[in-house]
Amino acid sequence: MQLKPVCISEKLEMFKDQWSPKIIAQVNDHHLKVVKFQGDFVWHKHDNTDEIFLVVSGTMRMDLRDGPVIVNAGELIVIPREVEHKPYAAKECHVLVIEQEGTANTGNAGGSRTAPGDQWI
Amino acid sequence: MQLKPVCISEKLEMFKDQWSPKIIAQVNDHHLKVVKFQGDFVWHKHDNTDEIFLVVSGTMRMDLRDGPVIVNAGELIVIPREVEHKPYAAKECHVLVIEQEGTANTGNAGGSRTAPGDQWI
Repeated sequence: MQLKPVCISEKLEMFKDQWSPKIIAQVNDHHLKVVKFQGDFVWHKHDNTDEIFLVVSGTMRMDLRDGPVIVNAGELIVIPREVEHKPYAAKECHVLVIEQEGTANTGNAGGSRTAPGDQWI
Repeated sequence: MQLKPVCISEKLEMFKDQWSPKIIAQVNDHHLKVVKFQGDFVWHKHDNTDEIFLVVSGTMRMDLRDGPVIVNAGELIVIPREVEHKPYAAKECHVLVIEQEGTANTGNAGGSRTAPGDQWI
């Protein structure tokens, strides 16, 4: 077995599509995914997993039913399971998401913004 | 419930002790910990959890029985369960560790370098 480092910025350079998380690492039953956000997403929640959004570059706004939270590069926010949320970014923002494997980006909402949940890069 | 962002660099400024991981976030049954490395650690393995080491600043060397792997800032390495490893850093290096909750830093080795596994900051 050859263990190699994974460079986050190199992984982000490998794709341009937004709102389509790509898996870059696995720790037990959890995935680390990189994703590019710009504009607005859909309100949704995940019934079976918490989610961490760690901002790698740019700034995102996490809309919650209680109001928005700004998350800057170098910061993370934990969204507990069952909490409705909607990511937004005025300019393109790059984010590392940590969540249980098999999690769909649109959670309970589904619909056309649902991305494949199993894309490794 | 008020959800607030967690700033990784602010958490790292809150302590000076090395080799003593501090929990900054939880996602399901996994912890995110920040830790400062300098010098050599002990060979060990974890029988029940994979581990991710994401280098926030500086450079670390992960010694493996097959040879060393250099991990620079912005890179991560996954150490699968049961794989012996020994972190090393010539200069102080700041790392984000992701692993199952309840994991001791020295794994199966134990000994005087074992840090409390439940320190939140």
